[in-house]
Amino acid sequence: MNYNIGEGAAFSKTISESDVYMYAGMTGDMNALHINEEYAQNSQFGGRIVHGMLVAGFISTVLGMKYPGEGTVYLEQQVKFCAPVKIGDTITAKVEVIEIINVDKGIVRLKTDVFNQKQIQVIKGYAVVKVPGKSVVR
Amino acid sequence: MNYNIGEGAAFSKTISESDVYMYAGMTGDMNALHINEEYAQNSQFGGRIVHGMLVAGFISTVLGMKYPGEGTVYLEQQVKFCAPVKIGDTITAKVEVIEIINVDKGIVRLKTDVFNQKQIQVIKGYAVVKVPGKSVVR
Repeated sequence: MNYNIGEGAAFSKTISESDVYMYAGMTGDMNALHINEEYAQNSQFGGRIVHGMLVAGFISTVLGMKYPGEGTVYLEQQVKFCAPVKIGDTITAKVEVIEIINVDKGIVRLKTDVFNQKQIQVIKGYAVVKVPGKSVVR
Repeated sequence: MNYNIGEGAAFSKTISESDVYMYAGMTGDMNALHINEEYAQNSQFGGRIVHGMLVAGFISTVLGMKYPGEGTVYLEQQVKFCAPVKIGDTITAKVEVIEIINVDKGIVRLKTDVFNQKQIQVIKGYAVVKVPGKSVVR
């Protein structure tokens, strides 16, 4: 299989309250902004927000499950958190190859962006991965 | 409160099989390397590995819960995945201020590293955050 600049995939999910609470328990990140509605309503966000790194995790879902897919080795991820995600928001993580870093080793850079249901960008960043089968086209 | 270069904190956790399975269900990242022991045993890793972005999430736990702590606003995270984490590994996420980016806005850069129980570095990276109260010292 070949991997070319401009190719990519996306994954969407509505983030539930249970997602946020399980993630808080799993990671120990019980920041009041995520789990205390009374506190969060009085913050700049006006209500509980989803952990940024949980939202960023959906980028990995696209990379490992859709494109490049099975066998992808995750080398690097950079994310900027541009806007808050609320419980109940439907987010879409998109990845797109923007650079072939090493043809022989099959290492590519992808643009990795996440948007909410209003098309507001919530995460902007990039990933570096080793594609399965090492076959890339410059 | 002031925030100075060299300050930081750490958080440790043994990653359980249930952590990995709940995270797989939550994110949809059912990559066989994470949830299929038979497949993973025949891979370069020799067994199931923990999702990299789940491990990276413990950096957020330190930032939000320990240092700088409550009120921290997460702006940016960069991670390089240096070594695999296996189910049962005990990981330690460490953060340390390395740069005061903007004194007035209280924006600092922290080195964010994660190690396993053998002191092997599994994640190397940095975060940019806005500290609570905006008070930093150059």
